[in-house]
This record gives sequence, structure tokens and C-alpha cells, in this order.
Amino acid sequence: MMHPQMRRLAKPLAVSALPRGFEGAGATCGIKPSKKPDLALIVSDRPASVALVTTQNQFAAPPIHITREHAQGGRARAIIIDSGNANCATGKRGLADARQMCALTAKALGVKATEVLVNSTGVVGVPLPMEKVEAGIPEVVARVCPAGINDAAVAMMSTDQTPKRATRRWSQGRAEVRLAAIGKGVGMIHPNMATMIAVMMTDATIAPALLRRALRQAVNASFNCLTVDGDTSTNDMVAVFANGASEATRIDKVSSTGFDRLVGAMMEVCQEIVHAMAADGEGASRVAIIRVKGSRTPEEARTIARAVGSSSLVKTAIHGADPNWGRIVVAVGNAGVEIDPMAVSVSVAGTALLRKGKPVKFNAKSVSRAMTAPDVRVEVDMGLGRAEATCWSSSLTEEYVRFNSAYTT
Amino acid sequence: MMHPQMRRLAKPLAVSALPRGFEGAGATCGIKPSKKPDLALIVSDRPASVALVTTQNQFAAPPIHITREHAQGGRARAIIIDSGNANCATGKRGLADARQMCALTAKALGVKATEVLVNSTGVVGVPLPMEKVEAGIPEVVARVCPAGINDAAVAMMSTDQTPKRATRRWSQGRAEVRLAAIGKGVGMIHPNMATMIAVMMTDATIAPALLRRALRQAVNASFNCLTVDGDTSTNDMVAVFANGASEATRIDKVSSTGFDRLVGAMMEVCQEIVHAMAADGEGASRVAIIRVKGSRTPEEARTIARAVGSSSLVKTAIHGADPNWGRIVVAVGNAGVEIDPMAVSVSVAGTALLRKGKPVKFNAKSVSRAMTAPDVRVEVDMGLGRAEATCWSSSLTEEYVRFNSAYTT
Repeated sequence: MMHPQMRRLAKPLAVSALPRGFEGAGATCGIKPSKKPDLALIVSDRPASVALVTTQNQFAAPPIHITREHAQGGRARAIIIDSGNANCATGKRGLADARQMCALTAKALGVKATEVLVNSTGVVGVPLPMEKVEAGIPEVVARVCPAGINDAAVAMMSTDQTPKRATRRWSQGRAEVRLAAIGKGVGMIHPNMATMIAVMMTDATIAPALLRRALRQAVNASFNCLTVDGDTSTNDMVAVFANGASEATRIDKVSSTGFDRLVGAMMEVCQEIVHAMAADGEGASRVAIIRVKGSRTPEEARTIARAVGSSSLVKTAIHGADPNWGRIVVAVGNAGVEIDPMAVSVSVAGTALLRKGKPVKFNAKSVSRAMTAPDVRVEVDMGLGRAEATCWSSSLTEEYVRFNSAYTT
Repeated sequence: MMHPQMRRLAKPLAVSALPRGFEGAGATCGIKPSKKPDLALIVSDRPASVALVTTQNQFAAPPIHITREHAQGGRARAIIIDSGNANCATGKRGLADARQMCALTAKALGVKATEVLVNSTGVVGVPLPMEKVEAGIPEVVARVCPAGINDAAVAMMSTDQTPKRATRRWSQGRAEVRLAAIGKGVGMIHPNMATMIAVMMTDATIAPALLRRALRQAVNASFNCLTVDGDTSTNDMVAVFANGASEATRIDKVSSTGFDRLVGAMMEVCQEIVHAMAADGEGASRVAIIRVKGSRTPEEARTIARAVGSSSLVKTAIHGADPNWGRIVVAVGNAGVEIDPMAVSVSVAGTALLRKGKPVKFNAKSVSRAMTAPDVRVEVDMGLGRAEATCWSSSLTEEYVRFNSAYTT
């Protein structure tokens, strides 16, 4: 039984919807014992502005270090990603291997090694099987084509049940601008530490500094509001390439329609992917969409939404379709944000359960029935201001525990 | 199959080990549908110094507010606790009911209402059945006796499988000082939000300000290092009464053997109770004892130990007896403390798995076998300093999820 959001985003992207000047490919080089595709490539036919958000985990993996270095100047051409091995906790050899992945990809593409970004997802603490990767890179490069972006989305999957893809297009003056995103989840699991990776491509024209700002805004309202199990992996990364192939006028300031449209579109595709990641969370039975409004600042709203979405007790109640508002207010009270308990209202699946700190009588059976939907909306009104934020969270299930407690041995 | 620590602390305390001048009792007033004891009382025969640590949850329940008010002057005589109803999210009526519990207890004991502390644990959002409580209070007061402290430990249980009790005694000059503690856990569950409550009694002689300091130190090294599911309940509280009945000389400064001994004993009983609470965590199959050493400061060590102990992925790995050091380092890296990844070493159940950032070859089968013990020791050496901290954590099991996702409806 697949969540509708996963089914929606699993659909291959139409070539006519893809940003111009981008191609992609997927290949099997043999890292995964399953022989499923494990090498993904995205390429721009010209230098593109690039912006990154990477893991804040202090154990950031070697490829993250190399990618940060290569993206520093704000320009890049391609990204190569392997799945099945995270190249993490692999020390100096890991750094050399990540550099080598960039160098080989660059050579096959005819670009500079520093124009190639790299990431990895999979087993931790095991060196990459470089002979396989080295043989696979020319192969994946040979396959690139626009429709191959769909294959790249498949090749970067680890424990994902489906690939995740989304697009947007809009007008800027006479030009049409396009944006595509591919992403993988789903949570950190063993033996694959399923890193969260997303790559966006747009044919908008924008300088790296502004693109960075746009990405930060989009990620704050999407990936930073996703909680599957609360652990940030060593390889998490969101990257965006903007290659200007749309020939739309250059976006050169924040206060412009062009910038607003781009941020809006990036936010939307990121939220679509985040929603699908939550739905594809390990063992997830449904998605909780937690909207906190009436906060003094967006940061406070986000902190509270994340606290509710991260609570194991809320996540099990969502799984059990249990309209247990007590757990929601406890998580709100634990968020570390100053609140007025007598101003807080809570509704679940459209029914008010707490109004200004006072329990409301409600039909528990009918709310519980409404909570069996694929998406359960939890709305918390803090009653203190006008700022809001939304967080996506997977339900916590017996299946999650079974999946994550399996013996390695 | 009961964890040995639970079995140990379930043993009734010998009257000869109890601090002098304290009595207790338990009674059934009918709050719990099960007709199990639900009213607990601890009394000192003379005014005692009192110190408190209460929940930081912004939705603190009415009895917590009243208890903070009554303990402000640092002197008290008794504490009355009901189980089965948390008197939480009950508004003004809840405050009036908590006050009334103190007033009735005080009347029956012949002391002032402000000398009585109060707490509640159980269902949220439902007013206390005051007619039952009012009938029960004289009854519980009539039963007080030294051995009744054991009954109080039973009457404050909610979802605990066993009561939790511990004692210590030591010499101070010619006098013997005694300390006893009773506690309940176990995690926040529905319909009972199983608040964590502990009450300590000592016949040491000490002023309230110093007692507060001693309590803070003991709690930092024990209750603040316990993680069952990461949610702090609305009614959490640790209280200590010191009534001076030992006739030991007054502890009047921090730099004294008397103070050190008292803090040491308080820390030990609190850690014993915390260990039993983790063992009695909902659905817990075993306890992870996470020791972080080699940190720059005790606060950093505690932050890292708590991050490891709170990680769902570490908790499921402990349940699965899976020596998955990758999850441990990811949690370490996510703690928000600056670290040197290449200085970190990890051992589990006595076997080194990571040494200064490098994976160590180990016999996974034998480590996994060692991890099936009731207590699994995880040791993380940060390699940066000499400070350390220990955290107790329950494993995360399918049983926990089943227990917490049951329909209310």
C-alpha cells in the first residue's frame, strides 16, 4: 500500500518539463550486492551557478568535504553519486577516493575535476570498491541524456521504495524558466545509512550568492522541517545547479519577481520531495503534517513544529490513529520556546481538541477514523502572533523498530 | 523476565535502614479503575529543609505550581501524591484541587497547608475525582508508619512494573546519617502520562540553600541523564526532605566532608533509581549505559551521552544486540558539541569498535552475544580532555510502539 505522494513523485519527469541544458544517467557498477543501479550522474552542458546545504554532523563523510571544496567558488558542471557505500569513516583513503570519483567523471566529461561534485550513500566504515566505481564512471557518462535524469533518481536510491522527482515551470518576462528536483531518503538505517540527498536543476540565470540565499530559504521551509528519526546523517546534502539555459534575464537582486518565483518554485518541489520522503520513511504507515501558527517568529514556529514532529509519543499516536492531544501539548511545552499554555489550541484531522488551553469534548471515534488517512494534519495555534511553519513527520511503527533492530551478525 | 536492577530496587526497605523521623503510607481511594493503591504520603515528624527539581515543560501541571509555591521558603513537612490522574490541563479548577489536597493533608496531620507539597500522575485533561481524594486523605494519614514508606512507593506507581526504592547510610562524626529514596517512572504513556517522580528523605541536618545545591548535583548526574523516550512530562519532579533527626552536626558549607558524603549518597540512590527506571521503560528489553569520557567539560560529555542515549537508531540497535557503531558516531556528531572525529573511540560491551576515528576489525557475533546482557555498556572516548558523564537509556522495541499506539477510542 503506497502513499499517494510517493506514487505521484515516482512518475518519470517528461522531457518537455525538464530545465534545458541538463542531462543525467544511472548505471550499475556493482557496489550493491542486489545489482540494482548504484551510480547516478547529473550534468549541465555549460558551467552553472551552484549552491549547497550539507550535513551539520561533525562526522561529515569525505565526499561532503570534497563537494564543499569544489562548490566554494559557486560554479560547477556535474554531480556524481554512488549508492550502496557511504564512503564515510574511511579517513584519508576516503578523501582520495572521493577526489578520484570527481577526477574520473571530469575526464570522461571533458571538464575540470573541481567542476564536479560528489556524494555517496550506503554502508559506513567500508572503503569504496574503487575498481568497480572506476569501471562504472565512463559507462554512466556514456549514457547521459535529458530523460536520463529519471534514471539518476533511481540510481541514487538506497532503502527508498520509489524514486522521488518533481518539476515546476513559470514565466519570467518572455522566457519560460524550468526547475526539476530528484531526491532520496529515507532515514538512517543499517546496513545502509540512508542519507537524504536532493539535487535541483534550473535553467534560470542567477549568481551563486543569490542562489545560495534562495536555497537556504527553500531548505528552511522543507528539508529542515522533515523528521523521520531525528538523526542527521553524515552525507546529507541538497544541491542546486542554475545554468542559465532558459535565457531568462539574470536574477540579480532579492527584491525581484524573478527571485521570488524561483524561491517559491524551489520551496514547492522541496516540500513535495520532503512529503514523499516522510511517506517513504522506514515502516511509516502515514505522514503527519504539523502546522504551527500564531507564533511570534517563523523560527519559533519551526522549533515547535519540529519538536512535535520528533516526539516518539506523537509519532506512535499518529500510527495508532489516536487523537491524543496530551502528547502534542507535552511536545509543544518541551520545545524550549516560551509559550502561553492558556493560549494554545490544537486540532487534529480538522477537529478541535484543545481550545485556548482547555480540552474540548469531541467524538474520539470519528477523529480516530479521520486519522487513518495517508496524511494526518495536526494544527497547533500558539495564540501569540502571526508566524507559522510546517513540519512533515513519519509515524513510528513496529515495522520501523523491526527494520532497525535486525542483527548485522 | 525482570531486569535485575528492577528486582533489586523492588525489595522493601528495612525499617532499620530508614532515615529517622520519616513515615509514609499508601491507600486506595478509587482514582484507578484497577483499585490499586493510588494515594501516597510521606511525612516528617518535624519541619524539614526541602529542595525541588521540577519539570521544565511549559505545560507544567497545577500541582507542580502549588508545590513550587509551598517549597519556596525551603521548609516542608509532607508530600501527598495521587496516581491515576495527573491533574494536568485542568486550568483553575486544577489549581484549586491541588491546593485542597494540601489543605486536607495538612488538617489531618495537624500542620499548615503550606507545609505540604503535592503531585499527581496519570490521565491528562480530566479533573480529579475530588470526592474520592477527599475521602482517601484521612485514610492515608491514619496509616502512616516508618514501614509505610514502602507502601508509598507502591501507591505512586502508574505503569511501573515494580516500585523503586533505595537507601544509603554513612557516618558523620559520631552520628550515622541515613538516606532513602522512592521513585516511579517510566515514560510518558497513554492513557497514563507516566510522570517521573522521586522523593528522597534524609535525617541529615542541612539548610535549604545547601540542600538545593546538593540536589542539583545529584540530579544532573542521574535523572538528567535518563532517556526513555525523550519527552519530559508535565508533572516530573524530584524532591528531597532533610529533617535533621540524625542529630549529626549541621552541614553548613559546600567544602565539607558532610556535604560531599550527602551529595555522593544522593547521587548513588538517584542513579540506582534511574537505572531501574530505564530497565522498567515501556517495552524495554535492556538498558544501555552510555559513558562518555575524554570530553573538555562535564556538560559537553553529558550532552553527547544524552544525544547517543536519545537516538532511536541507537536504541533499536541496542534492542537488536547490533554492534552498529556507525549509529553511535552519527549521534555523537549530531550532539551540537564541537569534536575531533579522528580522536573519537567507541567500545560496546567491552569490545573496541572504533579507535581514534578508525574502524577496528571485531568479531561481530561475539559482541552481539555480549549485547544480549540486561545492561549494555557503550563507551565513547572523545580524546579531548578528562571530563566524563554517564547516561541510562532504554532499548526501543516493537513492544514500545505497540504499547504507545493503542487506540484510545
